[in-house]
Amino acid sequence: MSTDTASVASFGAVGLTCPTPVSIHDRIVLGHGSGGKLSAQLFRERILPHFQNEVLQRQEDGAVVALGGAQIVLSTDTFVVQPLEFPGGDIGSLAVHGTVNDIAMMGARAAHLTVGFVIEEGLPTVVLDRIVSSMAAAARAVNVTIVAGDTKVVERGKGDGLFINTTGIGLLDPAFTPSAHRAAVGDVILLSGAIGRHGMAIMAAREAIGFDTTITSDTAALWPLVELLRCATDSNVHVLRDPTRGGVASALNEIAAMSRTGMLLDEPSLPIPGDVMAACEMLGLDPMYVANEGVLVALVPPEYAALALTALRTHPLGVDAASIGRVVAEHPGLVVMKTHVGGTRIVDLLPGDQLPRIC
Amino acid sequence: MSTDTASVASFGAVGLTCPTPVSIHDRIVLGHGSGGKLSAQLFRERILPHFQNEVLQRQEDGAVVALGGAQIVLSTDTFVVQPLEFPGGDIGSLAVHGTVNDIAMMGARAAHLTVGFVIEEGLPTVVLDRIVSSMAAAARAVNVTIVAGDTKVVERGKGDGLFINTTGIGLLDPAFTPSAHRAAVGDVILLSGAIGRHGMAIMAAREAIGFDTTITSDTAALWPLVELLRCATDSNVHVLRDPTRGGVASALNEIAAMSRTGMLLDEPSLPIPGDVMAACEMLGLDPMYVANEGVLVALVPPEYAALALTALRTHPLGVDAASIGRVVAEHPGLVVMKTHVGGTRIVDLLPGDQLPRIC
Repeated sequence: MSTDTASVASFGAVGLTCPTPVSIHDRIVLGHGSGGKLSAQLFRERILPHFQNEVLQRQEDGAVVALGGAQIVLSTDTFVVQPLEFPGGDIGSLAVHGTVNDIAMMGARAAHLTVGFVIEEGLPTVVLDRIVSSMAAAARAVNVTIVAGDTKVVERGKGDGLFINTTGIGLLDPAFTPSAHRAAVGDVILLSGAIGRHGMAIMAAREAIGFDTTITSDTAALWPLVELLRCATDSNVHVLRDPTRGGVASALNEIAAMSRTGMLLDEPSLPIPGDVMAACEMLGLDPMYVANEGVLVALVPPEYAALALTALRTHPLGVDAASIGRVVAEHPGLVVMKTHVGGTRIVDLLPGDQLPRIC
Repeated sequence: MSTDTASVASFGAVGLTCPTPVSIHDRIVLGHGSGGKLSAQLFRERILPHFQNEVLQRQEDGAVVALGGAQIVLSTDTFVVQPLEFPGGDIGSLAVHGTVNDIAMMGARAAHLTVGFVIEEGLPTVVLDRIVSSMAAAARAVNVTIVAGDTKVVERGKGDGLFINTTGIGLLDPAFTPSAHRAAVGDVILLSGAIGRHGMAIMAAREAIGFDTTITSDTAALWPLVELLRCATDSNVHVLRDPTRGGVASALNEIAAMSRTGMLLDEPSLPIPGDVMAACEMLGLDPMYVANEGVLVALVPPEYAALALTALRTHPLGVDAASIGRVVAEHPGLVVMKTHVGGTRIVDLLPGDQLPRIC
């Protein structure tokens, strides 16, 4: 992050000059795309004030708007992952899953997607073919149609192979409206699967890292799990969130802040695969901040927790589902973890990014 | 377009090698983003076969989908224009107008937009501020709300300052469904304003070009003109299209192909500003292929043509509106121009691009 620049303030006729350090906020840095504190700040200070409206202000995974008597969920995401193809998926399937999942986290099934490609001049068409084919297969698998698209080409060195925006719409059922604002004291925090796989698969796929691993991305559409959860809880799912950029830690911090509740996690119950743990330790990363693309966090009232967990485990995506903690009245806005050794530590938002460009 | 590469085919044991030119279709070239023949080919051969569905196959400016009993128009566009700020607008206002206009060309008023930013590390935040502010102002002016967004940051040299995707939704009135498939023999072809301004303003703003001009982009939201046209024609507008990438020539070729009709244009009636004409002549460009961002093409039955033209001229955006030709039974799929000197010439699709990255 060598983007800081120094400006020189001139004091008029005496010709006195004094180097004034310019804050990193004078220029965009990679951390602004991290899903951490800098991302939140960028949105809060640079975007939201201009676009001020109630829907955007809710900061959910998707927007709910009324149109023609229907309640419609709308969500958008641009994918800039590198490499374009990685163990377990590619930017194409990821672009479908990512937006379908954001809509699913609002409680709705994505019905239609639009797609916008920004292609760097020189991209081999066979790569484009594979990725578009993968997108199409991912869309078919979740019964979503890609109904509109746009293609732009930029010169060599002005892009990075391929960026893909997907935007989706789905129909909201007013009887099922999970929201990050609805966490309630007593809710049990469930994770639908083992964490850290997507981020570590991307990390391993980057040549520069150079560790051997068989970790594959967990990229998958989460709608089937949402349906199971709704059924098992009689629609009593308070919160759904897919912990992508910034990982489980960031997702829980957002929920804690938006619902003004505390979160108390139990470290030994966290489902972390051995190979992910080993890779994280080697690289000095915390799996709680590593991105997932096929895992959801669900907050359900305690009386439904056991049923919800059992329901998740009936699905191949949910075999590693676990109850990892609960919502508490203490320390509102904070996520606290009871550690393996019996202590507690605060699981804060990171300022920037452990792994840039993982989605 | 120096992206062609040569491969060497080896003929086994004899060691005979022979350089085989590889077609440009083995790699993406700038022309694939031009809005011309290469763009159409890319879509037809590389995208459509994978995403095969009736809505996409219609190749309109937007998709019409049914959701919750409503007929919804959905359209997406990614903006990669350089420079980010140019006389008459910037990438922010353009990103709002572009998608709002695509929805307007389907006969619908855009209600909500999503926005996806891809920011290159190092972009000055003051530039981002100005552009986001400009987007917000453009959205307010057309009463559209920006309800969801996403921000990604890529490393220096992996982007180009800022790319913006906007995706919009609007409600279709089944009583008003202009479509590029509906051109009918006898229809009069109207242009709502003078052409070539956006493309030439961008051209002039690029340092390398080095001609002085006061040409400003025409970027504007076209919905007010659509409302006037609908009113003046009692909803009898057959086709609406905004001639952006590829200009008026490409838009009319698309309509001719999709409706299997011929177009006969009258060159002297084309509204081309003197400064645009002069700049085009200097650079050897044809204004018929230069992008517009605040002009529409409307095809209306002859009995409504005069009323439609009068209605357009009542609006500041429509003062230069003109009738430029008509739909004919002859030469289906072709656009033919009667020239100043009394001859005729075919106005074909260009293979590639006169001006890359104008939107």
